[in-house]
Amino acid sequence: MDGRIGDISAPGRLAGPAEGISTEELALATRNHGLPLEALRYELSPPGLHYVLVHYDIPAVDADSWTLTVGGRVRTPLALGLAELRALPAVTRRVTMECAGNGRALLTPRPVSQPWLVEAVGTAEWTGVPLRALLERAGVDPDAVDVVFTGADHGVERGVEQDYQRALPLAAALGEGPDAPEALVAYAMNGGPLPPQHGHPLRLVVPGWYGMAHVKWLREITATDTRFTGFQQDVAYRYRQSADDLGEPVSRIAPRALMIPPGFPDFMSRARVVRPGPVRLEGRAWSGAAPLAAVEVSTDDGHTWHPAHLDPADAHPWAWRHWHTDWTATPGRHLLTPRATDTSGTTQPLHQPWNRGGFANNLIQRVDVLCAKAT
Amino acid sequence: MDGRIGDISAPGRLAGPAEGISTEELALATRNHGLPLEALRYELSPPGLHYVLVHYDIPAVDADSWTLTVGGRVRTPLALGLAELRALPAVTRRVTMECAGNGRALLTPRPVSQPWLVEAVGTAEWTGVPLRALLERAGVDPDAVDVVFTGADHGVERGVEQDYQRALPLAAALGEGPDAPEALVAYAMNGGPLPPQHGHPLRLVVPGWYGMAHVKWLREITATDTRFTGFQQDVAYRYRQSADDLGEPVSRIAPRALMIPPGFPDFMSRARVVRPGPVRLEGRAWSGAAPLAAVEVSTDDGHTWHPAHLDPADAHPWAWRHWHTDWTATPGRHLLTPRATDTSGTTQPLHQPWNRGGFANNLIQRVDVLCAKAT
Repeated sequence: MDGRIGDISAPGRLAGPAEGISTEELALATRNHGLPLEALRYELSPPGLHYVLVHYDIPAVDADSWTLTVGGRVRTPLALGLAELRALPAVTRRVTMECAGNGRALLTPRPVSQPWLVEAVGTAEWTGVPLRALLERAGVDPDAVDVVFTGADHGVERGVEQDYQRALPLAAALGEGPDAPEALVAYAMNGGPLPPQHGHPLRLVVPGWYGMAHVKWLREITATDTRFTGFQQDVAYRYRQSADDLGEPVSRIAPRALMIPPGFPDFMSRARVVRPGPVRLEGRAWSGAAPLAAVEVSTDDGHTWHPAHLDPADAHPWAWRHWHTDWTATPGRHLLTPRATDTSGTTQPLHQPWNRGGFANNLIQRVDVLCAKAT
Repeated sequence: MDGRIGDISAPGRLAGPAEGISTEELALATRNHGLPLEALRYELSPPGLHYVLVHYDIPAVDADSWTLTVGGRVRTPLALGLAELRALPAVTRRVTMECAGNGRALLTPRPVSQPWLVEAVGTAEWTGVPLRALLERAGVDPDAVDVVFTGADHGVERGVEQDYQRALPLAAALGEGPDAPEALVAYAMNGGPLPPQHGHPLRLVVPGWYGMAHVKWLREITATDTRFTGFQQDVAYRYRQSADDLGEPVSRIAPRALMIPPGFPDFMSRARVVRPGPVRLEGRAWSGAAPLAAVEVSTDDGHTWHPAHLDPADAHPWAWRHWHTDWTATPGRHLLTPRATDTSGTTQPLHQPWNRGGFANNLIQRVDVLCAKAT
């Protein structure tokens, strides 16, 4: 019996009304992982706590022979080994990264894909060469419009065999524009080599953008004189309401605040137990679209809101910020919720921002807490 | 409204006949994670690839003030800081660790808990002080029967509020007996400090035992003159057929072989694509109960079996071993399966070894492969 790719690679679909998480979704959830929410206590997320999403397999790489090419519409194509990249002027940037699919499994109907709840986030310090410096060294032609990034990871998705590829418009790749972040070709995370699952030996880091832009296992940078229309650009990662809707591209990270769940958990329900009396509520908040303006907290499931203290951004405009407030817990059940607003006026929604890919669902987090005396 | 712990912490249950993975199970799957199977290529699993299961929260710890006590039925109670522990003679051991719940989500009916498929495993080199050396230094009383290990993680499970605690019989804690492993109080993993999720700053490592024995965030060792009957010993982690069955305790790791899925995957189904022709099949195999004797491979869903080449154990009797064999792929669908057998004669089952906790399900792995020409 011959086989075709379509036999193992189905089109996207929405889960049925009462359909639990499928074995396929579970297989993604057991290999990829989010940030355990108590790890919001760490300003920098260590490997294994920082979220990871790998589309295909983590590729087997030989760092010693790794070559990054910069080509296409450039005057001087480059082929750089790791030693050559490390010899170039480097910068270190603290960056909060979030998966565009964060919140997907809370949507109704649920798009069937990696089933994140709220935890697909992490912050690290990435060290590498500014992308702009590499593009300037190669000399991008005036007619270039996009810069395409190709990773070493290879697989099939919705019937399409592919290397993972994403593009940035040239201006974004060059970091041009008043609020444009500076992209990096990074070779270090938190001061050490990239872990395999974070792109060893090289990855793109695009501060402020959702994770799909930060191409891992980066091996090729190509300037093109036509807009890139690859699978991850024009099929996946678009805000669509229906399958035949072209939609808008997913790009910058919408505002979100998360709370470190207070007290201690039940193993299975993850509901929390706190004692009556004062309880410090704290967490992190971020937005990749505009600076954060405020974090508010509700302790009555969103009926009333109180401002939280939000730490300044200091030298890290693309990293999450710590927030805190104090609450006096009284016996009974409580739903605790933080909510972030950025300076563009965007606030986290109280109702889900549904789209067919399940992207950028920054619906407020609800932390279920039981306040009970010690027994 | 007052609340009680029972409101947020339900008894164990089995999933209904057509019940998909629940949001509660998913919440565990997004925080804990398995070894992505391609990471079987690494002899040592780095943090973030080595499996992790945390019952409650990763505790916030201060390593500088951390004290490990050794007390109970001993002549000389000890209280040791990290510097004192590091000054004692240390050993390094390569150990394969597997969650006792590995394979649970493949069971029918499915016990509702952390929903592992096959990937809850990892191998690391752990450095620390032999437990026996600490117990000898404290001088365990002749009437002691168990040694209880208490972690800093605190939570509720099936209605019972608790610190995580497990015990070893005294002989096992001392490493006595012909095939008894030497347990360690470890402060380093793969040459670096323990990551937070692996027990920073101290954990117990009990080679050959399922993960529940390797108590993380270890703060207290207590010799007792009666058998320990805590929740994780006498309620959880027992092989039961029904809720009122006392069952046998879960202890050593049953044999298992896993294959690195060959070729490349489909994102969603995780089915594999290979090209026609020779394909190297390889992976790792282990048993904590007895040395491995053989690995066989079937390429026809278990109808016929062929011996694979199994690397020797060398100096690492408690670590997984690499195996490989060659296969000629022909166009069509194939189910590939490895199977491990240990020297006690135990072979991985072709049908599930069901029990109510979903423990030690070492049912053979099935890798779904499509062999197709390049298009």
